[in-house]
Amino acid sequence: MRNIKLIVEYDGTNYSGWQTQKNRKSIQETIEEVLQRILQEDIRIIASGRTDSGVHAFNQVVNFKTRSKKIALSDIQKALNGLLPKDICVKEIIPVKEDFHSQYSVKSKIYRYFILSGKIRSVFLNKFSWHIPYKLNIKLMQKESKYLLGRHDFRAFCASGSTVKNTIRKIKNISIKNACKLLNADCPLIIVEIEANGFLYNMVRNIVGTLVEIGRQDNGCIKEILLSKDRRSAGPTAPARGLFLFKVKY
Amino acid sequence: MRNIKLIVEYDGTNYSGWQTQKNRKSIQETIEEVLQRILQEDIRIIASGRTDSGVHAFNQVVNFKTRSKKIALSDIQKALNGLLPKDICVKEIIPVKEDFHSQYSVKSKIYRYFILSGKIRSVFLNKFSWHIPYKLNIKLMQKESKYLLGRHDFRAFCASGSTVKNTIRKIKNISIKNACKLLNADCPLIIVEIEANGFLYNMVRNIVGTLVEIGRQDNGCIKEILLSKDRRSAGPTAPARGLFLFKVKY
Repeated sequence: MRNIKLIVEYDGTNYSGWQTQKNRKSIQETIEEVLQRILQEDIRIIASGRTDSGVHAFNQVVNFKTRSKKIALSDIQKALNGLLPKDICVKEIIPVKEDFHSQYSVKSKIYRYFILSGKIRSVFLNKFSWHIPYKLNIKLMQKESKYLLGRHDFRAFCASGSTVKNTIRKIKNISIKNACKLLNADCPLIIVEIEANGFLYNMVRNIVGTLVEIGRQDNGCIKEILLSKDRRSAGPTAPARGLFLFKVKY
Repeated sequence: MRNIKLIVEYDGTNYSGWQTQKNRKSIQETIEEVLQRILQEDIRIIASGRTDSGVHAFNQVVNFKTRSKKIALSDIQKALNGLLPKDICVKEIIPVKEDFHSQYSVKSKIYRYFILSGKIRSVFLNKFSWHIPYKLNIKLMQKESKYLLGRHDFRAFCASGSTVKNTIRKIKNISIKNACKLLNADCPLIIVEIEANGFLYNMVRNIVGTLVEIGRQDNGCIKEILLSKDRRSAGPTAPARGLFLFKVKY
């Protein structure tokens, strides 16, 4: 058996998310179907983690095992990129040891969230950002975000329906940057980047929603929210369309 | 009568272009319909020039005249951006003198063309660039492009069906740049920017198609193509999806 790792980029707009849901196609099944056509066997792919409907990925990591020994990896990649729809593509294909597991072997993950902060929306970033039509105090957001660094109980930032028991995670890095020069055009884009050893359900979107509320109301209270361990004390969930799985580290 | 100028951004993917064609909606009629709803009168908008189906605009300039005196410009803009579809938006609204004409008053226009030069396509730039899956000699393309500067007969770069008589135009600036740091991710993006006092039909796309052929074949011949005044000596027409009307100067 060969164990094969893929680095996958996708625009999540038109999918039910990584995993299949009723009536809507998932990214997972779209890739599996194409792999099965290429390799002529049942293929089950494992991702570093699920992404929700509308969430995008620059570098999702996936692995699968195959009995096929004949086809060169570069040919599998070419066939995948030829047969996959335009909103999914395989950036890299790499042979890995038999015990490599895209989900269990993860050391940390990096997410990026794109906020368009300006009066006017952007037709090009519409599906890839959250448009906030008022001014944000970015310096305060940067200062407040630092309270999230380190090992904490992030229960306040976990989706309220979640049944996960251990809500302790470690945020290794968090940054909030202005990235105005997009496609060489001025564009009031803010990128929030968070690296953690793991994320609770909706954790990034709840942190971003809370930080945006802080930047808008000019009033910092992340420390209190974190200590409250109460989802109701945090801000709203930021929309899926601004979220990108940026990198997975092993 | 008020004469009103709009700066409009659009993603041209789902339109027949600026102007209406059979069975497909144009950007012009989409904006006119919304303006008529807001101002309750027949409105005719004039653009700096037409763009083809699939061509985008960062800053298309448009003007129209209206009898309405009551509604504040900022309210017209808000109403427009509320009612227009997500792929069209009005970035600015400015009162102008009665004799301002978006097309006749143009001094020069700037187009940008986005080329994605790398083995792997991008799911995010799919509708906004031309993917060239082989290496391009950018230095040669830059050197060759300089022969286009100045006043020339650009007949060789004009669509063959065009009936225009005067094919002399003046290219004021041309640049070819690597713009790798897109959305803070590495991305082999090349931006060709051309400023001219006017453009022939398909002129930018034919120049880009020719420059890409030069960069791919490592063989410069722009000077000869220009002198030939023969469309057949130039390269193929680059696809519409990589082209952006970037700025119009008055």
